[in-house]
Order: sequence, then C-alpha cells, then structure tokens
Amino acid sequence: MSTFGSHFRVTTYGESHCASVGCIVDGVPPGMALSEADVQVQLSRRRPGQSNLTTPRDEKDAVKIQAGVEKGVTLGSPLSMLVRNEDQRPHDYSDDTLDLYPRPSHADWTYLDKYGVKSSSGGGRSSARETIGRVAAGAVAEKYLREAFGVEIVAFVSSVGKVHIPRYPGEQLAGDESANAAVGAGSSSKLVDNYIDTTGLTEEEAEEPLSLEFRQLLATITRQDVDKTDIRCPHPVAAERMRQRILLAKSNNDSIGGSVTCVIRKVPSGLGEPCFDKLEAKLAHAMLSIPATKAFEIGSGFRGTEVPGSRHNDRFVAKHDGTLGTATNWSGGIQGGISNGEEIYFRIGFKSPATISQNQSTATYSGKDGTLATRGRHDPCVVPRAVPIVESMAALAIMDALLAQDARTMAASRLNAGPVLALPNSMHLPSKLKTRQDHLSGS
Amino acid sequence: MSTFGSHFRVTTYGESHCASVGCIVDGVPPGMALSEADVQVQLSRRRPGQSNLTTPRDEKDAVKIQAGVEKGVTLGSPLSMLVRNEDQRPHDYSDDTLDLYPRPSHADWTYLDKYGVKSSSGGGRSSARETIGRVAAGAVAEKYLREAFGVEIVAFVSSVGKVHIPRYPGEQLAGDESANAAVGAGSSSKLVDNYIDTTGLTEEEAEEPLSLEFRQLLATITRQDVDKTDIRCPHPVAAERMRQRILLAKSNNDSIGGSVTCVIRKVPSGLGEPCFDKLEAKLAHAMLSIPATKAFEIGSGFRGTEVPGSRHNDRFVAKHDGTLGTATNWSGGIQGGISNGEEIYFRIGFKSPATISQNQSTATYSGKDGTLATRGRHDPCVVPRAVPIVESMAALAIMDALLAQDARTMAASRLNAGPVLALPNSMHLPSKLKTRQDHLSGS
Amino acid sequence: MSTFGSHFRVTTYGESHCASVGCIVDGVPPGMALSEADVQVQLSRRRPGQSNLTTPRDEKDAVKIQAGVEKGVTLGSPLSMLVRNEDQRPHDYSDDTLDLYPRPSHADWTYLDKYGVKSSSGGGRSSARETIGRVAAGAVAEKYLREAFGVEIVAFVSSVGKVHIPRYPGEQLAGDESANAAVGAGSSSKLVDNYIDTTGLTEEEAEEPLSLEFRQLLATITRQDVDKTDIRCPHPVAAERMRQRILLAKSNNDSIGGSVTCVIRKVPSGLGEPCFDKLEAKLAHAMLSIPATKAFEIGSGFRGTEVPGSRHNDRFVAKHDGTLGTATNWSGGIQGGISNGEEIYFRIGFKSPATISQNQSTATYSGKDGTLATRGRHDPCVVPRAVPIVESMAALAIMDALLAQDARTMAASRLNAGPVLALPNSMHLPSKLKTRQDHLSGS
Amino acid sequence: MSTFGSHFRVTTYGESHCASVGCIVDGVPPGMALSEADVQVQLSRRRPGQSNLTTPRDEKDAVKIQAGVEKGVTLGSPLSMLVRNEDQRPHDYSDDTLDLYPRPSHADWTYLDKYGVKSSSGGGRSSARETIGRVAAGAVAEKYLREAFGVEIVAFVSSVGKVHIPRYPGEQLAGDESANAAVGAGSSSKLVDNYIDTTGLTEEEAEEPLSLEFRQLLATITRQDVDKTDIRCPHPVAAERMRQRILLAKSNNDSIGGSVTCVIRKVPSGLGEPCFDKLEAKLAHAMLSIPATKAFEIGSGFRGTEVPGSRHNDRFVAKHDGTLGTATNWSGGIQGGISNGEEIYFRIGFKSPATISQNQSTATYSGKDGTLATRGRHDPCVVPRAVPIVESMAALAIMDALLAQDARTMAASRLNAGPVLALPNSMHLPSKLKTRQDHLSGS
Repeated sequence: MSTFGSHFRVTTYGESHCASVGCIVDGVPPGMALSEADVQVQLSRRRPGQSNLTTPRDEKDAVKIQAGVEKGVTLGSPLSMLVRNEDQRPHDYSDDTLDLYPRPSHADWTYLDKYGVKSSSGGGRSSARETIGRVAAGAVAEKYLREAFGVEIVAFVSSVGKVHIPRYPGEQLAGDESANAAVGAGSSSKLVDNYIDTTGLTEEEAEEPLSLEFRQLLATITRQDVDKTDIRCPHPVAAERMRQRILLAKSNNDSIGGSVTCVIRKVPSGLGEPCFDKLEAKLAHAMLSIPATKAFEIGSGFRGTEVPGSRHNDRFVAKHDGTLGTATNWSGGIQGGISNGEEIYFRIGFKSPATISQNQSTATYSGKDGTLATRGRHDPCVVPRAVPIVESMAALAIMDALLAQDARTMAASRLNAGPVLALPNSMHLPSKLKTRQDHLSGS
Repeated sequence: MSTFGSHFRVTTYGESHCASVGCIVDGVPPGMALSEADVQVQLSRRRPGQSNLTTPRDEKDAVKIQAGVEKGVTLGSPLSMLVRNEDQRPHDYSDDTLDLYPRPSHADWTYLDKYGVKSSSGGGRSSARETIGRVAAGAVAEKYLREAFGVEIVAFVSSVGKVHIPRYPGEQLAGDESANAAVGAGSSSKLVDNYIDTTGLTEEEAEEPLSLEFRQLLATITRQDVDKTDIRCPHPVAAERMRQRILLAKSNNDSIGGSVTCVIRKVPSGLGEPCFDKLEAKLAHAMLSIPATKAFEIGSGFRGTEVPGSRHNDRFVAKHDGTLGTATNWSGGIQGGISNGEEIYFRIGFKSPATISQNQSTATYSGKDGTLATRGRHDPCVVPRAVPIVESMAALAIMDALLAQDARTMAASRLNAGPVLALPNSMHLPSKLKTRQDHLSGS
Repeated sequence: MSTFGSHFRVTTYGESHCASVGCIVDGVPPGMALSEADVQVQLSRRRPGQSNLTTPRDEKDAVKIQAGVEKGVTLGSPLSMLVRNEDQRPHDYSDDTLDLYPRPSHADWTYLDKYGVKSSSGGGRSSARETIGRVAAGAVAEKYLREAFGVEIVAFVSSVGKVHIPRYPGEQLAGDESANAAVGAGSSSKLVDNYIDTTGLTEEEAEEPLSLEFRQLLATITRQDVDKTDIRCPHPVAAERMRQRILLAKSNNDSIGGSVTCVIRKVPSGLGEPCFDKLEAKLAHAMLSIPATKAFEIGSGFRGTEVPGSRHNDRFVAKHDGTLGTATNWSGGIQGGISNGEEIYFRIGFKSPATISQNQSTATYSGKDGTLATRGRHDPCVVPRAVPIVESMAALAIMDALLAQDARTMAASRLNAGPVLALPNSMHLPSKLKTRQDHLSGS
Repeated sequence: MSTFGSHFRVTTYGESHCASVGCIVDGVPPGMALSEADVQVQLSRRRPGQSNLTTPRDEKDAVKIQAGVEKGVTLGSPLSMLVRNEDQRPHDYSDDTLDLYPRPSHADWTYLDKYGVKSSSGGGRSSARETIGRVAAGAVAEKYLREAFGVEIVAFVSSVGKVHIPRYPGEQLAGDESANAAVGAGSSSKLVDNYIDTTGLTEEEAEEPLSLEFRQLLATITRQDVDKTDIRCPHPVAAERMRQRILLAKSNNDSIGGSVTCVIRKVPSGLGEPCFDKLEAKLAHAMLSIPATKAFEIGSGFRGTEVPGSRHNDRFVAKHDGTLGTATNWSGGIQGGISNGEEIYFRIGFKSPATISQNQSTATYSGKDGTLATRGRHDPCVVPRAVPIVESMAALAIMDALLAQDARTMAASRLNAGPVLALPNSMHLPSKLKTRQDHLSGS
C-alpha cells in the first residue's frame, strides 16, 4: 500500500501524467507553525532541471496545502498537500517502440504483470514524481523534529560510479592532483579508482570501519555545505570528479549510479521498537523504498563485520551534560534497535538509472527479440536529486518512532512504579543520571 | 511493536528468562497439513549448542502448537506456538558488575532508557531467544510457499571476518593452498585477505557485479549443501578458513562478524507493492530487524552502483516456458519494487557479537569509569545460527506480499475489463504471453 | 486517524473552510471502468440544498479525480479524489458569541481540549463536509461490488422523531387516515405516535422481531423507491408525516433526529473475520463513525433479545440454486461474524442536530454562564442526507472484508488439502453443495 | 484478524479443544505492578459454572503469565498470557447429528464456508472460550486506567428477555408486588412486561431519554453492587424476575437473550479520533465483536433520536474543579467522537444463545431436511457471564484511545505555539480553564 508510518502516517498518490501528485499526512502534532514555504524548500531541491547534471524538465512543483493548516498553524487534522502535474508531455513515452517493449530494468513489465493494466507512462507509480509526496511530508516531519529537539538531518552524495569521498583509513582519491586535468581532457573514458594507502597506520587503525576524517565530516556537515555544488558532494575534489563522471555518462547516452550518505544528529534516545521495528529496520525500509535503491548500511556497515567485537564495541563514557554516551559510534547511534542519542548515520546505494537514450537489445512484451530505442529527457544520475528524498524518508522514520515512544513515555509517567522498581535490589539509578523524560522535556 | 506483516501477521513474545517464548501467526491459509515436526526442523537449526562454533547452551527448544491446527491441518484460525525456556540460568547475567555496567554495544542501556525498567537479562527482548518465534512462524510460511509454488529459500554464510566466499570476477582466497596450514599453525593471528586478480578478463567482465561462479552458486545451492559444514558455508575451503577464524576469536575471548547471503527461487512474479512497500524494502526491513545486523544489499548491491546503466540493465528474453524473463539478473529478481520471477538474492552483514568474555573499559550506568568483566556462554560468531533466521524472515516477507497480491488478483479477476483495456490502441497482449493468473494457478 | 479499512483503505482529509476536501483510496482493484460521473451520483445525493428539508447551502460538490485512473480505467494505484470548498462563508461561524461559547453537544469544546488549537469552524473535522471523502470512496467500492456480485445497497429513512415506518407485527401509524389533515392544519404541535395492535396475531407472531411487511420491504426496496420523496422514506404516509415533523422543527428553530435502515443484498458468504473483526463489528464501527450517530442494531436487534432461542434461530433450508440458506433471517445475514449470503440489514440512530437557530443557555469556554445565539443555515434533520453516507460506509466495510477473504480463498485454493480434510471421518461434503469458490467465481 | 487496537494491541488465539487459549498484549506501559491475581479476578467472573444460571462446565481457567512481567512489574515488552483447556470433552459436540447438521444461528456453516475446513467444535473461534484472551487483556488495561486516572468501569445486566431494569421516565415493572409469587407458582409461562406510567410528569419530562433513577444508578453503581446477585443485575426485584426468566428458559430446554449496560467513569477528556475512529465507533466495534451481540446504543441511544435538539443538547456548565462540564449527559460522555470527561455509558443487546437442548427442524450441510438433536451443557442465557467481557472490551477501547492521544499530547507539548495560536484574535483562553495537559498530569 502507499502508506508509510503508523503514528505519523503518510499516504501518497499520483503517477506521471495525472492531474496532480500529493499526499495526506495524518498525525501531525497540532499547534505547529507551518507554511507552504516550509515545504517548498525541499521540493525545490528535489525537482529536476536544477543543473545540467539532471533532467532538464522544468517542473515548477509548487506545493499547495489543501487542509490541516489554518492561519499558519497545524490543526492536528490530516494535512493534505498537492503539486499539479504541469509539464506532462505524455507523448515522450508513448511512441511505438515503448508500446511494444518493456524497458529493461524498469517497472514496465512488472507493473503490467501485477496489475494487468498498463499506464501510459509504463511504470505508473514507479515514476520519480511519486517521491514528491514523500518529500512534502518529510519536510513537515523534519520541521517538527528541528523545532522540538534541534534534530539535524543532512544527506550528501558520497559516491558516483567509482568516485567515492574517501571514507576508510588510508583511502585516497587516486591521482588527486591531476584528476581534473585528466578528466577534463576527455581523452580517457576511464576514471582512476580510489586507492588505499595505510602507510603509517597500525593494523588496528587501518582496520577501523571509517576514517577519522569521514567521521568528522559526519559530525559537522551542514545542508549549506552540501548545496555548494550541484552534485551535492561536500568534498570539492571528489565533487568535481563526480561531475565529470556524470557528464561522461551523459555524453555516452548512458547512466551511472552512486551512493548517498545521511547523518541525523540530536535524535533523542529511546526511539525504535525492539524486535521487528528496530529503528535501523525502519530506516532500511524507508531507504529501500526510494526508487533505484539497492543497498543500505548503518554505522560500520559491511566493513564493520570484519572487525572483532573487542574493537567494534562502543564503550560507554559520561558526557559533559551528565548523560551517558559512547566513546566510538560504530553502532551508528542505534543499539538493540533503539536510538542511544549518538549520531545516526547510514549509506544507501542507488543503481544506474534504467532509462538511457541509446538502443538496447531486448524483447517485446510478447517475447520477440528486437531493439528498443528510447529518447527523451532522462537523469544520467539520480543521486544529487536523491539527497532531499533520503532526508525526507529519514525524517519520516524518526518522526514515526518518536510518536510511538511518546505514547509509551507519557503512559509510563503516570505509574507510581518508578524506573527503579524492576532493578536488582543492589542497584539504584543515581539521581544525576538523566532519564529519558529529562531528555524529552527540553529541546 | 512486536508484529511483522499485514496479511500473514506474526506477533512474537518472550525474553530470556520468562516461562516461554513464542508467537501467534494470524492469516495462515486454512487446509494446510502442518505438524510440530514441520516447524522443529528450522528451530533445531537455529538453536545453540550445535557445534563448538556456537554457544554451548543446550536448549532443546521443542515447539508446542497451542491452537490453529486440528487433526494435522491448519484451521485458518490464529496459530499459536511456544517453546519453554528450560535452561534459563539467570545468574549468569546478574552478577554484580552487570548490575552496575551496561554492556557496550548491547541493548542494556537503551532498554533501560526506553522503558525505565531493567529486566534481569539486561536487554530484554534483544535476546537471541526472541528469534524463536520468528523461526517458528517462518517455517510455516516457508512450508506454504514450497507447497504452493515450489519456492526454495536457501541462506548460507558468505563471510566471516575478512574470509569471504569469492564473489567478484577475479576474486580469490589468498594463499588458498596453504591457508589451512598457516591458520592451523596458530602462529599468526592474521588471516590472509581475499584478493582480486582480473588477469585475462576484459575491463567490462572485471567490472561485473558478481562472478559467474557465484551466480551459479546462487542458482543451484540447496539447504543440504549448506548443512554439510557446521559453519553453513558451501565453499569448502572458505568454510574451513571461516571455522579457523571463529576458533581464533573464541580462543581470544573475542568475537567476529560476517555475512549471510540468501537466495529465493521460484517466487511468483507480481509480489511487492509500489511506493513504500516495495519487496526489497520489506526484505530490508525484515533482515535489519534480526539482532546484530548492520547492512543489506540486494542484487548487484553497492558494487552495482559503479556499473553504467547500459551494462547494468537486465534485458528481456523469452523463456522456454513462454514467459518473459531477463538475460542477466542484476536487479536481484525485483524491478520497480515488484518481483519479476527471477531469483531474489541479497546479502546481510552481521556485526561481531557485543558480549565477549574479556574485560572491557567502560562506564557504569551512573557514568563512572570502570571495567566490566563478563563471563558466561557466548557465541563468538552468530552467522551460522543466523542462517535459518534469515530464511525465516525471507519467508515471512514473501508470504505477506503474496497474500496482498492474492487479494488484488482475485478481485481483479471478476472485472470484465481484461488486461488489455488500458493498453494503447496499437497494442494487444498476445495470447501466448502467460499472465500472472497463469503463473498463480500452477506451481 | 482518518483511515478506514485495511485492504480497501480510505484516508480522508478536509475541514469546512480549507481549499478542498477529499480522499485517497488505496487497494482499488485494477481494470475497473471508473469515471467522475460514477462518483458524482452519490455525492449529489449527499450534498445540501436538495430540498427545503435540508440546509440551503448550494455547494456544487463536483468531484475531480486526481490520480489512479487513466483512459477511464482504474490502474490499481491510489485513487485520489477531491472536491473544492466553493461556498465557504466562514463568517457564519465566527461571530462574537461563537468565539466565546462552545456549541452545546457539538465538537467545539472537545476539539479544543484534544488539540489545543481551535479552527475557525469550531469543530474542525467534525464538519459534515468531512463525509464527502467517504461518499466518494464508497461509490467506488459500491461500483465494484455491483459489477462483481450484483450487490445492492439501499438505505432509507425509517424514522424521524417519533414517526416510524411500521416495522413490528401489528405496528401502525396512529390516525393514519387523518394524519395529513391534522398536521397540515398546524393546530397541534404534537404528532400522534405509532401504536401496536396485535389483534388477530398469535402471541408468537406478535413477538416476531419484525413484521412480514417490513421484511418484504427489505427484500425489494430500490434506490429509486427511496428517492421518490425528498425525505427518502419509501412509505408514502410515513414520509409525509416525517416531512411535517421536520418542517415543524424548522419552524421552531429546532432540530429533530431519526433513524436510517440499510439493507445489503447479494453479499457473498464468507465475509468477516472471527473474533474482533466480525462483519457486524466492522459495520457498527463504520456506522457509528458517521457524525451524529448514537445507536446501531443488526438483524433482530434489541427487540430480538426478547425472543427465545427456539424461535430466534434461523433454521437451514436448501435454496433453489443448490446453496444452503436460512428460512428466517433474524441473524441479519451474519452468523458468527461471517456473512451467510442472506440479506444484511441494520438500523442506525441519528440524534437531533446540535446546531439550532435559537438561544441556548450555556457557559463560555472559561465557564461563565450566558446565552449562545446561533444563526445561519442548519439542517433541521440529517437523516435524508445521511442515506448515501450510510450506503457508502456499508460499501466500504463490505469491500474491505471481501478483499481480506479473497486473499484467504486464493491462498487456500493452492493447497492439495481440500475442504474435507479436517472433517470427521464419517462425513464428506456432497459434491452438489456449492463451495465458496463457486460462489465467488460467478456474479 | 484476531487483533484489537493499534497502540494497546491485543492478539488472541485458541479454540474450544486445543491445548490452550490466550493472548499477546503489546504496548503495555512499562513499570506497572502486575500479577496473575490481577488478571484472574475478571477471568473467574467470566468462567462458566458460577451458578445454576450458566453452563455447569467447571473450567478452572487459571491464567499463566508467560512473558512481559519480571519481579511483578511489567517490562514494556509483549505480555503473553494463557489458560490451559482442561475440561475439553470434545465428544459432546462430535456426535453423529452434529457432523451432519450445521447448528442453526451458530457459526458452523459460515466457518466451513469461509475456511473450507471444519474444526471438531464446529464454530472454531466463535467459541466462548475465545473471550478468555480478551478478558485477560482487558484486566491489564483496566488496571492501568484505574491506577492512572481512577477510571471505574462497571457493567451490569439491564434486561433478560422482556424483563428490564426500568430506565425510562415512568417505566415500571408490571405487577411488581406479585411478580415473585406469580412466577414462583410456575403456573404461567408468561412474564408480565414492563409498562410506562407517566402520570404526574410533564410531556417533556416523560420524553427524557432516561429516567432520573437510571441516571443515578449509572452515577453510583459499583462492581460490588453488581456481584450481589448471580444474575449481575443491581435492581433486586428485576434481578429475581430475570432469574426466573432464565430458569424458565432452562426448564424449557430453550434460551433467552438480554442486554448489558456499561458505564465508564473518570475517563479523561480528549480521547477518540475524529472521523473514522470516533470513540463511540471504537466502542461499538469492541462490543459488537463479542459473540451473540446484535445491538449497541450510547448515551440517549435510539430513544434520544426522538427528542428535539433544543432538549437533547447538553449545555455547558462550570464544574467545581474549574473544568467545563455539561449539565445533562445525553451525549454519553462523547462529543464529536471525543470524550468530554463526563460518564460514558452504553447498552449492548445479546441474542438468545443458538445452542439449545431441544430438537430443531433444519437441513444438513448437503441441504437435506431433517432434525438436529443437540444435548450437552449450554448457557440458557449469556448476559451474566458477558458482564466482565463487556468491561474488558471497554477497557481495551479506552486504553487504545488513551495511548493514541498520549502521543499527540506529548508531541504537541514541545511546540512553542501554545493553545491560543489558532484562536480568533478576540479570544484568549483564560488561565483558570484547565487544559487537557492539566487533566493528564494528575490522576
């Protein structure tokens, strides 16, 4: 179904060529100042036509609030928002070959198989325009989280093709000094890969899941840093090389994938449900629901699986504000499925876009071999535009977990049985340890 | 909450030291033969004490069906199953230091923070015993899928620490011939990493997301192959090296992580919901809800993001049985969030277990620095036992998606408007193309 | 939350004075012909200004489909529909006294208490305009049920104030012959009550829950019959007297309640879930969610509780079409929470509208005694307009139950274990007994 | 499905003749003292064999907590409870005729039709034993509500057959003085009906929906009052006459229905969701999900629909504690779907039990006419035992609504925009008006 969340519940609608796309958001806290401008910011970051790296369709994507807000304040009733489909140009997709051929690695065939009907755009709800509703809803969740806790959600492009922001100890951009020249010359279609040089590092340092530099980036990066480049990569040299990689794909009538990394700072502790709805499971669900995603890792991720427990464990330390924190954060801010107050960070892999402007050998719907020739306006790489979508889905996942925990916290606060009741007799929580209620009462 | 699925809905309960652990499964199709033995098989694969690679706790884990089955046949009513907690030994965890210290990277602190109460086992529902309910429910889903479609779900250990089954073109186990000797000698704590040798491969071949050998493994592997070794790795040389890696961790009073790869064959096409509940999103949710997981990738995964669209796209071909399939399968059996009938395969990363039998510098609940000394029976590596859990969660995700689609298929089948109605005028589905209804009617 | 249904899921939005009101319907079967005209029919029956018995606000209420339909056929994707708020006139409600006084028995105070914010209309989502989304969605569900099974849903006004369509054995409209004259004379503000005359009936006949005439009405009534009068009551004499009763309330600046009875014919058997989601429980939920409702009874209802089991039980009989049916139908078409193929019928009580155009002694929000003077356009009686709303909610409840059962039926049909497996050894289902699958395959 | 509630979520399992019946309750607030004795109280009130008015099956129904409680305190994890099926006697139901005949007005046929399998008890989950899980869960919800707010939930038998506790102005038990004698004489099978005598009342007084005496009963009745008689009716004369009515049914091998009235006092205001999940809709859903229920009315109910708005409206008054209340309470404690802090009261109709120990003319599963002879232990009337079930379902509905509102209240409390932001400029909430947050902070 087209609904995400249980407590902060977003339902989206809309295909490429219908009257509008939009969403209903149920569970918005009442009494929050909210305007269309609050939502438009992220929608404008999402829309195509922002640079020559993305599809040149000039969709204005102006959001209109239909209900749920009066005099600039949320009522607590369902918030409905929509964006008209202005630049539809349905003919782009309805030429003869597209009627005959399902596009490879696109949703044309699976949609027809699933529904038995074929929309004129082929993939129906698999359209990127479907994400407009998510981004609008995510902007509302994010505003609440920011106002209530100062939560900061920042996503950025961490790789395009083989060009990665260095993130492992010793990892470097190969030929850093000459990269621009080499690529700019256009004489080579091959971009030099990153390489690892752990000279001067101990074995243990070399095996740390992430480099100190990358962890510092996660701790400090802002959305302003991200938007300095069209590519939305905060590492200037990598950004330029990613840009070249995308232009190369574009000139080849081809496409290229990449990854987006996201950090969420100042998330209150205690969010996420044990068992099936662990916070990382909700985040993975949210991220893998974004079109073209193929992979997700949180905290130390796949690389962390290679590090022994004695080095991977995040030991506890007292923080300056009197709360308990961890010295390292390989857990990525979540332990046992529950946020611990540290930064939550994760990485999402996006495949190369399936629609490319070159001939492809494939088969027709009826199984006859042939050649599909696709023309039109296509993103050679989706990751720059995926940045606000990732941030939005992150906000939705956190917001939903927050409301679930709010119900529990408020209900438990009425019981005389305080937090010490079930503790072993020998132990009492010292008064100086801040409890979750303390966390939640202040922003 | 402790519920997974909407149509095939599993609710689990139970901590380490309570009377029993178990589940209620609602939505089981009526009329299916089902016995406790059907369920016990996977529970026995999950339980500890199977080898010296896992925790020696000898839990019998005998499942008892409480309701939902009569005369060996499911009634369609809620299926309730439970396993008594026989070997509880609560004192293992309740020594003095564990009262004072939250275990690093464990759920002790986040549970106390979230709930305000502390169970004697610390992490409460984060206990591995919670997975018993999942495995029992998954066995039921799997039985249905097997009987209805011949679905085959096979998971296996694909890495332990840095020891991977080779999966990339040119990837090899370094020092293959001497590995056993070197490790067996015990003289070195370092295990040689895999390496890549693409000699003789074209650049494009070298960049394919997975090697031909690994893809063949995915196409053919059986559960019998997996269970030939304690480690549950079907690659004999890698298996032995993984075993050594775990024994090394054990002898160091340490732990080590790894990865599990899972393939699901013969899944009917058309499963998965567009938008938020894409099949890969449900699978990611399911997998990241398993304790100790940190990463998920499906199909070509992270590596596939580096391959251009022209090479990553799975072109269509007619299959021998008259259905449309794809020549390659970098999509991992899912396009636009919907299964396409090809094999679904994915990989999950498990971190090193947090509980280790060595002293750890950390802080008490009240923020005082100190040393936590943990003793007891701990898995040095969870991936061998994780294999049936991964299979179970896969079965639950597929089963839930199947029932969602079944409702749609049956409802749509009553409409006079056939599958061609919304197609462009110029196009008609040839009768020889099998429709989804055809798929579903046969196994 | 503002969502109804699990499988056929309707989410509505909108207050009185926002840009639009509408809904998203998820789970619409793909391939169904659907136009705005299909939906408009019921919306036009619902809207005010149809006669001098209802509020004279002339809202056009023209529905616009936003997404989910292409070329006149449903895509299976979320169906979004909206109606602009054209005749808003917010000043009607925002005069001084309404700022100070919560309207008695209205939602003004409870909304402010619940949300902490006050919309300009006071009751926010309690507005009757909220029901537009329900009616639009219900029209879609009803169209499907009609096309797939020939389901007929007909609601009608069964009482206004004390004027009831006679429904009990021996019940009669008092002074039937002279009623029009008496009321028309305007000389009396009192309308003669119905009375019971069981002369000529045996004690058992007199105690039957419903009269034969009323049961025949349920069996045959059509929507055309209902719409013959503004009052939507198919009993001409009662209809005229109800009309007089409403006009009396109107001339008194007062309001009056009433009841709506609804019958659903040709519902397939097998719908409804045991335990919490019994079909009557879903219907009760649906009906009591309509504004101003206070009561619900199904089948023999409250009166049936007075009849002994030996007379209340519906004995089984073979029907002409070879299926098993019941001789009587005091169960109201549902046994054990599951539809049995007989007519489903129920009655809903609507209280007198709270907003009346006369002074009311009450207290301000701050608890100060005073007088609230309300002016404006108010329905003196809601039951005529409630008729399509009741039908819509009935359609939504049945449709959701149908899709739940469809998933079960389709899944069970793949199992080799046929319907006899769990039956006692001595018994086999004779082949001539139609199974549910037979029911479902034809309309 | 077998789940009730979204936030306080109860899933039940179990048929008549399986190993156990029980439930999982998810969402229990952590830190509440809870023992098996807390739950057993209501289970013992529910179980059969308490008097000669109910079925003599002596089931001990001892509840066993499986998980979710440690050291007598709830952990916040799923609470699992079960009751063994000790007195199964399956042969009672499996004699020859029951194999051939579906019991009239029972669930035998609809279950077989729905599931295609037949449990040995015929109706499977329609068994009264299914309600054990509800009552256990309800006892937990009720304990929380009592501890947190002092909520009082009291249900009682308000009618058996035609014997009603007088509840309308002027209503009297006919032949009150001689009733016992007449019935006791056993000479007459007819019990005199209640009658109405409005002598001395004004027309308006006579038309009030409920008499002053009945409203006082609702305001003061305790569970101790209810349990003074086996029949659970607090009106001594009516109780005795009800007892005679049941004994008459029993001696006739017949059964009789009745009604239960329930009042919930001290419910905090603000509970219930607008639109589909109005509090009365949730209560109606909860009550109509109880086996054998046919009708529900809240507040003034069906009779209230006959009273003009000017007399039916509940005008506001300041209460002694500074909160706003209503002078009358025809709304039944709910306005616009949201609780207003007044008493919530409603009435539920239960049909006569379908299983009776006399021959019934009916048809076999295969449609052949014949006679079903049922023997065994059957309740001649369910309403006395239904009392704790009604209380339990009421507690579940209120508890679920409370947690939904708790999430909203806590989330809204963090916003700077206070409750006055959306109010008209001319109006400010006076500080002396207690807000919902005030209500919630105290018990």
